[in-house]
Formats: sequence, structure tokens, C-alpha cells
Amino acid sequence: MQTLSPSSPESRSPAAVAQPAAAARTVAIDLGDRSYPIRIGTGLLGDAATYAGLPRATAALIVTNTTVGPLYAGRLRAALAPHHRDVHVVELPDGEAYKDWATLNRIFDALLGHGCDRRTVLYALGGGVVGDMTGFAAASYMRGVPFVQVPTTLLAQVDSSVGGKTAINHPLGKNMVGAFYQPHLVVCDLGTIATLPPREVSAGLAEIVKYGPIADMAFMGWLEENMEALRAGDPAALAHAVHRSCEIKAAVVGQDEREAGLRAILNFGHTFGHAIESGLGYGAWLHGEGVGAGMVMAATLSQRLGLVDAAFVDRLTALVARAGLPTAGPRIDAGDNAGRYLRLMRLDKKSEAGDIRFVLIDGPGRAVVRGAPDALVREVVEACCARAPVAA
Amino acid sequence: MQTLSPSSPESRSPAAVAQPAAAARTVAIDLGDRSYPIRIGTGLLGDAATYAGLPRATAALIVTNTTVGPLYAGRLRAALAPHHRDVHVVELPDGEAYKDWATLNRIFDALLGHGCDRRTVLYALGGGVVGDMTGFAAASYMRGVPFVQVPTTLLAQVDSSVGGKTAINHPLGKNMVGAFYQPHLVVCDLGTIATLPPREVSAGLAEIVKYGPIADMAFMGWLEENMEALRAGDPAALAHAVHRSCEIKAAVVGQDEREAGLRAILNFGHTFGHAIESGLGYGAWLHGEGVGAGMVMAATLSQRLGLVDAAFVDRLTALVARAGLPTAGPRIDAGDNAGRYLRLMRLDKKSEAGDIRFVLIDGPGRAVVRGAPDALVREVVEACCARAPVAA
Repeated sequence: MQTLSPSSPESRSPAAVAQPAAAARTVAIDLGDRSYPIRIGTGLLGDAATYAGLPRATAALIVTNTTVGPLYAGRLRAALAPHHRDVHVVELPDGEAYKDWATLNRIFDALLGHGCDRRTVLYALGGGVVGDMTGFAAASYMRGVPFVQVPTTLLAQVDSSVGGKTAINHPLGKNMVGAFYQPHLVVCDLGTIATLPPREVSAGLAEIVKYGPIADMAFMGWLEENMEALRAGDPAALAHAVHRSCEIKAAVVGQDEREAGLRAILNFGHTFGHAIESGLGYGAWLHGEGVGAGMVMAATLSQRLGLVDAAFVDRLTALVARAGLPTAGPRIDAGDNAGRYLRLMRLDKKSEAGDIRFVLIDGPGRAVVRGAPDALVREVVEACCARAPVAA
Repeated sequence: MQTLSPSSPESRSPAAVAQPAAAARTVAIDLGDRSYPIRIGTGLLGDAATYAGLPRATAALIVTNTTVGPLYAGRLRAALAPHHRDVHVVELPDGEAYKDWATLNRIFDALLGHGCDRRTVLYALGGGVVGDMTGFAAASYMRGVPFVQVPTTLLAQVDSSVGGKTAINHPLGKNMVGAFYQPHLVVCDLGTIATLPPREVSAGLAEIVKYGPIADMAFMGWLEENMEALRAGDPAALAHAVHRSCEIKAAVVGQDEREAGLRAILNFGHTFGHAIESGLGYGAWLHGEGVGAGMVMAATLSQRLGLVDAAFVDRLTALVARAGLPTAGPRIDAGDNAGRYLRLMRLDKKSEAGDIRFVLIDGPGRAVVRGAPDALVREVVEACCARAPVAA
């Protein structure tokens, strides 16, 4: 990853996290006329000043879900009141199982029902599912309206809300229908992490852990020293982890917005992880849990191909476990388990003419995208899958 | 419209149409890295050479409908065989009533069912509905795959296949969900016009007639001299009309791809026309028929605002009639007919904060986008609507 900008000084020294979390930081996503800032801090969500400078619009629509809405929609609505004459809210059912057309259409119903025009600003208030669906709705409503990401989960703050990937699922594959469409602003309010269940914090940590092996081994070292603080919700530790994760993602996305090449490295662990999610049925495992086990599987495949040594795989596996994540994949087929993994992975968007493209670790801190022989992948799947029978 | 490139010499002289129709012409759409050619000629559809130079891909999917597929899908498939190992075909039901999510999803089902990857090229073989849906499917499948427009109706050749507007309808509005997404190539095979019913030829002529009042009065004069030849399917006349229409559209789209301003003039007649289509239920009137009556209504509104004289309105009305199109709107409400027009037009994508933005003629050959008082719009609707009761 020699093409990435140097890591910020903080990623090399835990002392830097002594900076108070309340001081908002900004990471810039540089994409020409589609550039935008990521604001990171505590209390940003309910502060009207956070939303100054957005395109003027009479109407806004807050898209949230039945879990997050009751916690934060009122606060966001109040903060938007100085900026928009009409602030509407639509609450979607909560969960990956609802990341489908029928639920997406409820956003269009709300927009058209309120007579919203093509200047209307959409606000995505929630986790990755809300962000992906709101972003795709914004990309498609009247062929494109502005939108703002207000991610309330750790996973969304460090990954899905940044970079403009939006989508819904199709019964035959995750995120198969969507758009590259950039928000005007991302607001990461670290205060929302305090209300997350521990399982969701761990799922978010999967996407943070990812950035070490693919781009920044110093950050991996920092994570090893600070994992307990992160799981405990320490504001200063979270501020640093979110900031550094967004910095790395911004550097990658700035070079390859539409995933022509480099950007695919952000999918480390995701090829196996998507097969897990799809094989068990969306929602059985959280996305970050699939990525946790998926990173161990991808690292193991890297080792079998001679790209990293066993000690690296052990080190990553230990960090995944300390993040509270599964380190083994589930069995997703009572018969040919590895065959089912292979079939599902061939549907991955990175596949080309039926060849699965894996994101592998090409030495610590550096990723590569390449194929691997089916027989070897089968071995890795069997070596990395739990012995237990098929999960529900 | 002083910002448009000068009209080509042919538009000033009917003699130019003596050029044999079989000689393919090309119009370039200049949009930086999204530029592409429109090829216009007879016999292009079934010629393998037409498709040389597209991105290499193992798989292609031809999207067509149950009317056009039996006529041309075999010929297109044969022409694509040298370029793609697998050429799949999906046939959608025919008609504006099917321009919805359920039908769009059949394209995604076909793509995923065949294991198509993100290099797959989609070919839209049909009229405006097939083109709009295939384009939106291409924009959204795996967040974007290449596509080619092969329009087989006159309307699609001169308007909907060019410029990258894609969409599906929502029960509350036409083309409300879609994307700006440019094709890699547009292939206008004039031979397909010969198989069109006369009603569809007239509907296509509406979008050709449109270019005169908004941009090129010399072209309007040419149309007045050649309307019978066009309706009779004269290949040389069609070649010129399609070529000049695409030239004007290319000039407008090249300056304003995403309809921030200028591009809206291409919607001359469409604000009233969409209200007609929506008020009667999609499919009762063809899109071009709504545009025909809509242009007369918009010209009448322009006259009432003092922008053009009555002679101009009469001249345009006569041309619309000679194209075989309705010159009066239908009654779409048994009670407050004009009120229903107004309510439907407020849902138009050009509306801003509830104010309808009309495309008006600001002197012959020049368009302007502006509002108008409700009372005046009511008068124009009543003056321009048939006396007969509500149509089915």
C-alpha cells in the first residue's frame, strides 16, 4: 500500500488519544466536485452548526429505523429546523433482512407523499443498512438528490457511511443493486456508540481491525494496545480509531472511487464474509461478524499461498478474537460445505467470468487482489470452519 | 438558444436528404470520459462491425420486449456472437404500464441467474420503456455495468436513448426513480422504423417537432416541407430528421448532463404531457401523444405571457396535427379539470418548493424555463382541452 498517504502521527502513539474527544476532527474525502468532509466528535448530531453549509432546501427527510429513531430522530430534527422549513421522518423496520426493494420503496413513498422536489436533502440516521438504503434512494429519487450520512453504529462510522457505496440486497446476492453516490457530509457522533449493544461494537471493530493488515501495521499495533479501551467505549480511543480508519478509507477512495482496482482492498475479509452472511441467511450473523471470520480465512489463504507467515495469521486471529468476533466460519451446508462457500463466492461482485477475486495480504500492511486454485480454497474453508453442524 | 452549436447545413436544405440512407452517420455526445457515439443508418443493428470497440466482456444480456424480441433479437444476437462468449436474452412485457420495479427486477433476476459479473454488457433493444429500464438496470447492477442502446422506435432514436436519462415509474409519478447513466454506444437502425405502427411513428415525430421551437426554426421549416415523407417512412427524410434531432440533443446534453439548467428545455411539452399521461393512467395515451398536445398547451401559455404571437402557436399546432398527433388535451377530471392538471404538474421533477417550472417558447427557436400564475395556467388548460368528457 505504498500509494497511501503516510499514516497520521497519532496512529503511532497511544499518547495522542489524550486529546479530548469533544474536539471535533475532520477528514476530507477528495473527489473533485464530489468532495465532502467527515466530521468526527461527540455531540455533533444534535448541533445545528454541524449542518451549516449544506445545499439550501425547503424540505428534508430523515430516514431512520424503529430502533434508532426513538433515540435520536427528535434531536436531529431539532438541529435541522433552522435549515429546512419542513423536516419529515420515515422509520424503516430494523435489520439486514429489510434491505430490499419493498423497504426502499417506503422512502420513495414518503418523498412523493410529501411532494418533495429534487432539492430535498435526505439524512440517513442509523447503521449501515439505513445508510446504504438512504444513499441509494438519494441516488435514484428524481435521478439524484443530496444526502447526508449520520451513522450511529461504529461499523457505519468507520466504513459503510464513507465512500459512496450504496445498495440493496437481491435474494441471489448482497448489495447487488445500487450506485456509487457520494454524500454531501458524514457526521460521526461518537456519543451514539454508547447506546450500542456490545455485539454491535464488536461488529464495528471488525472493519477497524481490517485497516491494519491492508494498510497500516502501526495502527494494528495501536489496536492491540487499545482493544479493551475500545470495547469499553473509551471516547478518546474511539475518536482515534474512527479518525484513523476514515483517513485510510479516504485515501483509498480518493484514488479509486468506483472500485476499478485499489478500492477492492477495503473488502478484505468480505468475500468469505458475504458467503457466510448469504449462506446463513442475511441477519443471522452481523456483517462485521462475517468479516471477522472472513479475515481469518483470507489471511489463512494468503499464508497457504506463501504471502505471509503463520505468525501473522495467529496475530490477526488473536486480535479478531479480542474484538469479540468469531474466528471460525460457520458450516453453511450439511454436505459439501466448501462447495457451497465457493458457489456463493462466485457471485461476489469482484468475480470475473466465474473466477473469484480474493483480497489477500501480500506481506503485513499490504493487500493484493488475485485468484486462488479452487482446491486450495476448499482446504482453507475446511480448516477455518467450525466443526459444529449447520447453524440456524 | 444562442449557446447551441450552429445547425448542420442539411437542416437548411431539403436537398441534403438525397444522401443515401445506407451511409451511416455519427453524432458524438461529448461528456469527457463518458463520451459516446450515436450511429445512424440502415442495417446497423445486425452488423457485427457496429459493436466493435466496446469494452470486452464474456457475457452480454439483450433486454427486449415481447413485441420487439421476435422481430430483432435473433439478428442482434448473431451480430454480438463474435464479441461475447455468452449472449443471453430477457423479454419483458410490452408497455409503459410495465415500467415498474417488478419488471426491472426481472432484468436483475436474469443477470444473477446467469452469473453475470460487473463487466457484462447490457443491450437495450426496443423503445423508450426498454431503454429507460435497461439503462437503470445497467446503472444499478453491481453499481454499474456498461450498456448499449439499440432503439427500435423513432421516439427512442431521437430522444430517450440519447443523453443518459434512465428511470422507472412510481405510482405517484412518471420517471421518479432512476439515474443519469450514459450508454457506451447508441445504434439507430432506421430499418426498424418500417415495422412501427403509424401511431408510434407519430409519437416519435412529437419529439422531433419539439427541436424546432426550442432550438432551430430552420429545422421546423424543413419539417413542414417533409412531414408527409417522414410519415411515409422515407429513409432519406428519416435519416436527416434523426440526425439533426440527435445533433441538437447532443449539444444540449453536452452542456448540461444532469439537468442543472439548460437541459430542461428538452422537456418542452412534457410538463403538460406528463400530467395527461398520469391523469389518464400510463399507457392510455402514448408519451409522444401527450407531448404533442402538451406542446400546444405550452405554446399557448407562452403566447398568453406575451412571449410569442398567435401566428406562432397556430403554426406549431398545424405541424403537430400534420404529424398525426392530438392538438388538444383530454379532460382528466369530471369536476375541476384544470385543478387536476395543476396538482399533477406540481409533482413534475422540475417543480421547486411547489412552484411548477414550465418550458416556454421565448420567441421562435428559443426556450426558457419559468413559472406562471396558477390562474393563467387554468385558463390555458381550459382553452386547450377537448370538450368531451373524461377519457377512459
